[in-house]
Amino acid sequence: MGKPLIWHNITWPEVKKVSEEIGIAILPIGSTEQHGFHCPCGVDSFNAYELSKMVSEKTGAIVAPTMNYGSHPYFHYGFTGTIPIRATVQIELVRDVIKGLVNSGFKKIIIMQAHGQWWTLQTAIQEIALDVDCFMAVATWWELACEKIKEVCGTPFKHADEVETSVSLALYPERVDMSKAEPDYSLKPYIDKEFVRPAVHSELLNSFPIESITFVPQENVMKTGAPGDPGLATAEKGKAIVDTAVGVVVRLIEFLKKTYKPGEFPRVKPKLTEDMY
Amino acid sequence: MGKPLIWHNITWPEVKKVSEEIGIAILPIGSTEQHGFHCPCGVDSFNAYELSKMVSEKTGAIVAPTMNYGSHPYFHYGFTGTIPIRATVQIELVRDVIKGLVNSGFKKIIIMQAHGQWWTLQTAIQEIALDVDCFMAVATWWELACEKIKEVCGTPFKHADEVETSVSLALYPERVDMSKAEPDYSLKPYIDKEFVRPAVHSELLNSFPIESITFVPQENVMKTGAPGDPGLATAEKGKAIVDTAVGVVVRLIEFLKKTYKPGEFPRVKPKLTEDMY
Amino acid sequence: MGKPLIWHNITWPEVKKVSEEIGIAILPIGSTEQHGFHCPCGVDSFNAYELSKMVSEKTGAIVAPTMNYGSHPYFHYGFTGTIPIRATVQIELVRDVIKGLVNSGFKKIIIMQAHGQWWTLQTAIQEIALDVDCFMAVATWWELACEKIKEVCGTPFKHADEVETSVSLALYPERVDMSKAEPDYSLKPYIDKEFVRPAVHSELLNSFPIESITFVPQENVMKTGAPGDPGLATAEKGKAIVDTAVGVVVRLIEFLKKTYKPGEFPRVKPKLTEDMY
Amino acid sequence: MGKPLIWHNITWPEVKKVSEEIGIAILPIGSTEQHGFHCPCGVDSFNAYELSKMVSEKTGAIVAPTMNYGSHPYFHYGFTGTIPIRATVQIELVRDVIKGLVNSGFKKIIIMQAHGQWWTLQTAIQEIALDVDCFMAVATWWELACEKIKEVCGTPFKHADEVETSVSLALYPERVDMSKAEPDYSLKPYIDKEFVRPAVHSELLNSFPIESITFVPQENVMKTGAPGDPGLATAEKGKAIVDTAVGVVVRLIEFLKKTYKPGEFPRVKPKLTEDMY
Amino acid sequence: MGKPLIWHNITWPEVKKVSEEIGIAILPIGSTEQHGFHCPCGVDSFNAYELSKMVSEKTGAIVAPTMNYGSHPYFHYGFTGTIPIRATVQIELVRDVIKGLVNSGFKKIIIMQAHGQWWTLQTAIQEIALDVDCFMAVATWWELACEKIKEVCGTPFKHADEVETSVSLALYPERVDMSKAEPDYSLKPYIDKEFVRPAVHSELLNSFPIESITFVPQENVMKTGAPGDPGLATAEKGKAIVDTAVGVVVRLIEFLKKTYKPGEFPRVKPKLTEDMY
Amino acid sequence: MGKPLIWHNITWPEVKKVSEEIGIAILPIGSTEQHGFHCPCGVDSFNAYELSKMVSEKTGAIVAPTMNYGSHPYFHYGFTGTIPIRATVQIELVRDVIKGLVNSGFKKIIIMQAHGQWWTLQTAIQEIALDVDCFMAVATWWELACEKIKEVCGTPFKHADEVETSVSLALYPERVDMSKAEPDYSLKPYIDKEFVRPAVHSELLNSFPIESITFVPQENVMKTGAPGDPGLATAEKGKAIVDTAVGVVVRLIEFLKKTYKPGEFPRVKPKLTEDMY
Repeated sequence: MGKPLIWHNITWPEVKKVSEEIGIAILPIGSTEQHGFHCPCGVDSFNAYELSKMVSEKTGAIVAPTMNYGSHPYFHYGFTGTIPIRATVQIELVRDVIKGLVNSGFKKIIIMQAHGQWWTLQTAIQEIALDVDCFMAVATWWELACEKIKEVCGTPFKHADEVETSVSLALYPERVDMSKAEPDYSLKPYIDKEFVRPAVHSELLNSFPIESITFVPQENVMKTGAPGDPGLATAEKGKAIVDTAVGVVVRLIEFLKKTYKPGEFPRVKPKLTEDMY
Repeated sequence: MGKPLIWHNITWPEVKKVSEEIGIAILPIGSTEQHGFHCPCGVDSFNAYELSKMVSEKTGAIVAPTMNYGSHPYFHYGFTGTIPIRATVQIELVRDVIKGLVNSGFKKIIIMQAHGQWWTLQTAIQEIALDVDCFMAVATWWELACEKIKEVCGTPFKHADEVETSVSLALYPERVDMSKAEPDYSLKPYIDKEFVRPAVHSELLNSFPIESITFVPQENVMKTGAPGDPGLATAEKGKAIVDTAVGVVVRLIEFLKKTYKPGEFPRVKPKLTEDMY
Repeated sequence: MGKPLIWHNITWPEVKKVSEEIGIAILPIGSTEQHGFHCPCGVDSFNAYELSKMVSEKTGAIVAPTMNYGSHPYFHYGFTGTIPIRATVQIELVRDVIKGLVNSGFKKIIIMQAHGQWWTLQTAIQEIALDVDCFMAVATWWELACEKIKEVCGTPFKHADEVETSVSLALYPERVDMSKAEPDYSLKPYIDKEFVRPAVHSELLNSFPIESITFVPQENVMKTGAPGDPGLATAEKGKAIVDTAVGVVVRLIEFLKKTYKPGEFPRVKPKLTEDMY
Repeated sequence: MGKPLIWHNITWPEVKKVSEEIGIAILPIGSTEQHGFHCPCGVDSFNAYELSKMVSEKTGAIVAPTMNYGSHPYFHYGFTGTIPIRATVQIELVRDVIKGLVNSGFKKIIIMQAHGQWWTLQTAIQEIALDVDCFMAVATWWELACEKIKEVCGTPFKHADEVETSVSLALYPERVDMSKAEPDYSLKPYIDKEFVRPAVHSELLNSFPIESITFVPQENVMKTGAPGDPGLATAEKGKAIVDTAVGVVVRLIEFLKKTYKPGEFPRVKPKLTEDMY
Repeated sequence: MGKPLIWHNITWPEVKKVSEEIGIAILPIGSTEQHGFHCPCGVDSFNAYELSKMVSEKTGAIVAPTMNYGSHPYFHYGFTGTIPIRATVQIELVRDVIKGLVNSGFKKIIIMQAHGQWWTLQTAIQEIALDVDCFMAVATWWELACEKIKEVCGTPFKHADEVETSVSLALYPERVDMSKAEPDYSLKPYIDKEFVRPAVHSELLNSFPIESITFVPQENVMKTGAPGDPGLATAEKGKAIVDTAVGVVVRLIEFLKKTYKPGEFPRVKPKLTEDMY
Repeated sequence: MGKPLIWHNITWPEVKKVSEEIGIAILPIGSTEQHGFHCPCGVDSFNAYELSKMVSEKTGAIVAPTMNYGSHPYFHYGFTGTIPIRATVQIELVRDVIKGLVNSGFKKIIIMQAHGQWWTLQTAIQEIALDVDCFMAVATWWELACEKIKEVCGTPFKHADEVETSVSLALYPERVDMSKAEPDYSLKPYIDKEFVRPAVHSELLNSFPIESITFVPQENVMKTGAPGDPGLATAEKGKAIVDTAVGVVVRLIEFLKKTYKPGEFPRVKPKLTEDMY
């Protein structure tokens, strides 16, 4: 159990050493987004970074610098505190950073993302896999820990709610003001309930997924910006979630370390007569 | 219960009449993709189009022309018969067609997609919602019918398998050759099983989703291109799935018709000081 | 004289067989465009597809899936029923599909286009020829049959008129309603007659070509959207035109088959020190 | 009959005066392209500029600065002396310059192009007409004078040949060295003659247009780069061609001056619910 | 003298309060770049962020989240530890973040950049000023403090040298290991000395600026990556530089606060007939 | 001392000869920009071209065709007579022309730019150096001659002023009307003087550089468009400046000729595992 290896905190010969000895990087992708009355706007970036550091401590993989801006669904736009970038810009940004990691010798890359817009990163890695010769995986904490979340939390994961606030309390309690954590049930779909899944990530897909249907921008209707009752959050719940998510990523990295030498990687780029990029 | 209204089969005054009387369009998005030894390469386009027609018959919404090319994950590349377009190209293509539908008076649009790459369409509609003033929803048959699929099929949905072949048998049995439907279990992840969800769409998200991790391109390892045992497919199973999926979309359209006048729509485009597009 | 080989209707092993035995693909590019009171909005796509099938029957070349959306000149915009995509989007779309055909083993490609905007496809193939190593040709039926058109028709080709309606009557009479085919001479240039060629494709180039000069958008002035007198159309005229156009393409493909092995092709991509794409 | 008004040679108050009194600009678009042993690489730019000046002298329209680089078909690439830009780059370049002309008060613009690649400019103006509120026309001298060319020349127009060399002799004889004008018939299509039109611009379109089919890059096969027999050129032939082409453009400009006030123009930009650009 | 206001550390109602009361944001743009044997790879990001916080403390302006990746000149590429993004990607990224700041109510924005590639940010703000209605300024510490640098340092500013290391020692001495700060004079231009300015930022421009001429990538020739003698650095020198640079930005912000109300700003976006973006 | 070698004035075999014997090209990049009441709008293009010719005469390097349009800072927009192109368009344009020069055998390229917006060209060459294998340098006359300017002129260089008008008088006196050269001191920054450097190029960088801060567009405030007192200009001053600038470029070219064979060049393109372009 070592110190986390933070790219920005070490010198280039130290980076080179990690690339030669392990060759695995964790890339934290956060966002700048309102998280209610009680959590700060940096929650996604903090979560991505803190989880990455915990994985680094246990594996020796390096933590690349955090991307502090992410793409957002249209209905996040218009809320003060949220700074979205276009999905098409994020795809190109991620492409370049992946190339930079590979050019520094890291050919196995875990994207630690803590922001809801997995579709953009999904689109990004599929396209980048056609362009860059490396292994990538996208780790999203609420997917990795979704069974644990159901076990320890009473409400499904949405945003700045019981689940996410618990993670914040586990990781950086000093930045959370639970005295302002008030319930907000004002976010109501304005099309029939049948066409909206009650929760995105922890329920079966039995209807139009909430992000597959355009609905009313939340800043018009919400008071706090944090749907549900964040007052249910505790550091203990958060710790259980964090440990589970970190555990999966650590096991993936240990598997990669055991199976591939530092400069080797599961080769996935397709061999084509004509490349797409 | 009328005839389907097919944009390409009618004249512009007829299109205009539908836009003025209903103002709802269904946009089928298919793909060109291998579907094993027993199903043709047009399955995704056929499914998108046939389901759209069934919805049109029951609702009077118009069926826009089918997009026959879609974007694909990197691991589809290299398989003969599959013709992918870049995700970034598909986003711009969908943007323009949505604009064209709106410019013809259709401001409520259901994208009927029957191809696996929901992430690109998800990315597309989120960006287009910032650009075009209209209502959009993405309908994916295996999401809409996922509980019915679990009820009638013994295996989870992947590709050209029991589930999808059943849909083909229900909709266009003459294009399926069940005598060639042989089992193929050769698609094995080459990273540890823990890190790959056993089935994408019908199981809980309890690990790295299969598409969030880059893994070996399927054309290198598969014999038929159709994972699982398509021999289990029947037209009856397919009919149950199709009816369920069509039912949800029909109910959404009836809800929209009841709630909004032809030229009106749930307004979702955010009002910003500075637009992104 | 065999059955047409339709990519979407056959399995991938069948596509592979054609690529190995002939290696020639026909790519139908249509559009979604108003065609007057009497012809449906899918005329361009239908023509591209039907002509492609006829060529396939006679040559064994494969018919790739139809592109149902095309780019349009600015003056088509605003007419209900027409769905244009930007020229720059179409160029990228065609680039990807050409790559997909080459990646499936088809290195000799005939684009069968039946939509007026040859300039975009011209631009597209010149750029793609710098990028993709294959042979391409763009076949436009009214160019291939222009002398036959002058022989059998009394009026020069414009749009949804005697010429094009005749082709529709020859290929899919059930989709044409001749009872609605009324004359429309309302499309008048609003700049001096000297600067507009009377008909684009069947007269000498003796003035500003009609598409080289921006003029009034047609939807503002036309009643039917079909300039001239479509009532002059007959299936017989159409058959003569179709047979002529199909004949030229068939002879080109037979020439290619005779001259080049399936995997070979007239090599045209320039060898440069620095590639442009 | 005045002096030509050259944007680059006058001050901004003088430009402003022309914009207020006439409001018509001529934009010369040339290229950098080999023109055989006997003509310089700037022929296209010289022709565009000289013809523009002649039109300016007779009409008072202003001559915008010449674009010295143009897009080229793939088969021009690889010839020393030719510097092509991508078609997609040229489209954006022309878009910006058109905007600049409009922003300086010129809303009626004649593009005087003297380079073969009309398809790119055609594509450009169709897209720009959706974006910029102005009138544009593309004038190509061999189209404007094609009947006169047939009258005075014995061979059809190709490149650096009897026709084009005659124009050079008429406009800048000091830059032509007729002692090096030798015949070169080495450019032979390598696909069957039936599929290639014998001359691009002065014959009926009765086959695959020469630019619609990809064929062998010319630098591999040609000796001089000037197909045909440029030795047939004379200044007299050139003068007849030049006078005819200039005459048409002058008449167009006089028509525009008579019909529209300086700040007015034939309004062509379509009014759409959702703009494409 | 207050606490710095860090966007990521506060809630959206707190961000809103700053936007309404001051309306000025500082955007730190750093990079990920090797800084020799003795300084960490995050120097540019740390400097941008620390200087921004000092300005915030003194002015009440908000510190937007740091951009941790920047564009780099070609000769930085290839050095382990450096992760460049393309200039064209950075321009779009900055555009979106500026829009996000404006959409959250901050219309006066100071970009605090601490990375050498001012040309990309210069290009970015000139283009963004045509697109977004706000006031922007780019503050670069070694420009703001260049006279002070000459006063306190014996060598001109290059990279990870006496000057920059002094700043690091002033701001975060715990991340610097002066025991590894060895002299490195191995970076020699391989074209004649006359054509290369001896120091980029602190001398007169009397020759080809070092960045206007392509020269040998530094990773091929340098031992440490830190040109000059970083051993000359002291925290005192750094403090003098930092105080000077911070002082100028503080005075600019006080000037803006005094002159413009929170929602007002020096209006700079040109009014054009046709916008460029 | 020979004749200048002008690409557009010579034939392709002559271009080929220069490429084989010297292999060095000069690319003049000008602009279309107002230059006050007394200088024409083509000053930047004329200066770039005339200086290039002088260098060619002395070195035998070839002069590529002039780019007559350049990118401009936002505050140039809106002035009649100025036609800016977007920086992102100029970058792609320069990329293509550089490729064209290399494809014609010129691998050592001097960009002779005479327009103020060095940031765009700086951005351009840094990106192009990652893409194209060649040597490039950007020569700007007022940088090359800045000490001479301070010696012979009484006022620092801005635009169309004593310095630039002197150059015009030295190179093409017939295009300058000194009778209209009146003083104009109306361009005043509307933010505090401390934050604006008094002159961009001839003073120390001791504050926010004038181009790093957005300020009032000049067309709103200036009378002539030529700041300062152009009446101080003389041909003698101009000749001294021109000779100095030409001298430096000549010496660079002689150095390159002496050090590298025609086809060789200082190799600068970095070798990367994954290329950026």
